[in-house]
Amino acid sequence: MTRPRKKILLVGAGGTLGRAVDACLRDAGHDVLRAGRNSGEHRVDLRDDASVRAMFDGIGTVDAVVSTAGHVHFGPLASMDATQFDVGLQDKLLGQVRLALMAQHHLADGGSITLTTGILSEEPIAQGANAMAVNAGVEGFVRAAACELPRGLRINAVSPNVLTEAWTAYGDFFRGFEPVPAARAALAYQRSIDGVRSGHVYKVW
Amino acid sequence: MTRPRKKILLVGAGGTLGRAVDACLRDAGHDVLRAGRNSGEHRVDLRDDASVRAMFDGIGTVDAVVSTAGHVHFGPLASMDATQFDVGLQDKLLGQVRLALMAQHHLADGGSITLTTGILSEEPIAQGANAMAVNAGVEGFVRAAACELPRGLRINAVSPNVLTEAWTAYGDFFRGFEPVPAARAALAYQRSIDGVRSGHVYKVW
Repeated sequence: MTRPRKKILLVGAGGTLGRAVDACLRDAGHDVLRAGRNSGEHRVDLRDDASVRAMFDGIGTVDAVVSTAGHVHFGPLASMDATQFDVGLQDKLLGQVRLALMAQHHLADGGSITLTTGILSEEPIAQGANAMAVNAGVEGFVRAAACELPRGLRINAVSPNVLTEAWTAYGDFFRGFEPVPAARAALAYQRSIDGVRSGHVYKVW
Repeated sequence: MTRPRKKILLVGAGGTLGRAVDACLRDAGHDVLRAGRNSGEHRVDLRDDASVRAMFDGIGTVDAVVSTAGHVHFGPLASMDATQFDVGLQDKLLGQVRLALMAQHHLADGGSITLTTGILSEEPIAQGANAMAVNAGVEGFVRAAACELPRGLRINAVSPNVLTEAWTAYGDFFRGFEPVPAARAALAYQRSIDGVRSGHVYKVW
């Protein structure tokens, strides 16, 4: 079986998960273009149309686009307001959607888009109302977009559990959860890129 | 079994679904305060913090808050951009979330919040990527918020199929779907208000 070398744009490459995905895809023999808000060969802010457009204009056609980027608002429901809630909508939800909407025009035939959600799409935690709405929204977009993409393009999401590497920072929010190493979560991104499924959520938990 | 008369705020009361919910809740013996963007005793724009705050300040404590309000963007994925996508995020998603976040402070103990999603949270149609993301996001919010609400407060969503009354306008988008009368969908709102569940999506399809 041939194992074609793919040109992959990875947004969020400097983060904990992004670094593991970068390493996994390179180990698999792919070429990875690293992008991020504050690091990487390509600087991009997914909240900004012009920034995402400039990134794609500078890169040309790719075989896969991956996002491991996106922030949400964590805080108690009792004191949450719409402005705080919109932070996650604009960043992790609309930011990744913006990337995907533009990516569809810069992917080679048969290319793929892989976005990131997280276990909070299904498992509520205290202070996680924004995270759950955002992750569920991204997964809804993925399910719908998969049905409309042309030219054999595919789109999936990866939903990791809390990462082992993030346990010190976030463990108190995820008491009783089973953390997964970023390297294990990274395999799901490769599975999305090198596989055949579309409209799927790869759960790593 | 006692059937307490409840004071219910209904936002979106002037719409096709809202009118049916209004009738259903009045038939059930409740008092309904009608609110809407362009009709009703209380005028409100769910996209605006100040507008929602003013509505609650003018109403005081209620036993239930219901939304049958919210628009999304319909259009082909190939030509969709982030600005169009944000229309649905700001309106049907963040608008209903804003209503719920403020409602939690104006509900009597044991009160309820009921939001509206739709079959497009699970069943993709062409041009429906924004609708699916928005509906899924609202349902994610409901699942998470239910776990944090105090004082016996509950929150649910109702997910109707395309309405019989909207078939002439929307039937071409929903070919092969089985429309439901608004009066039948309205029962699910009463079930949410007069029932005991929380964090639930009442599917009317």
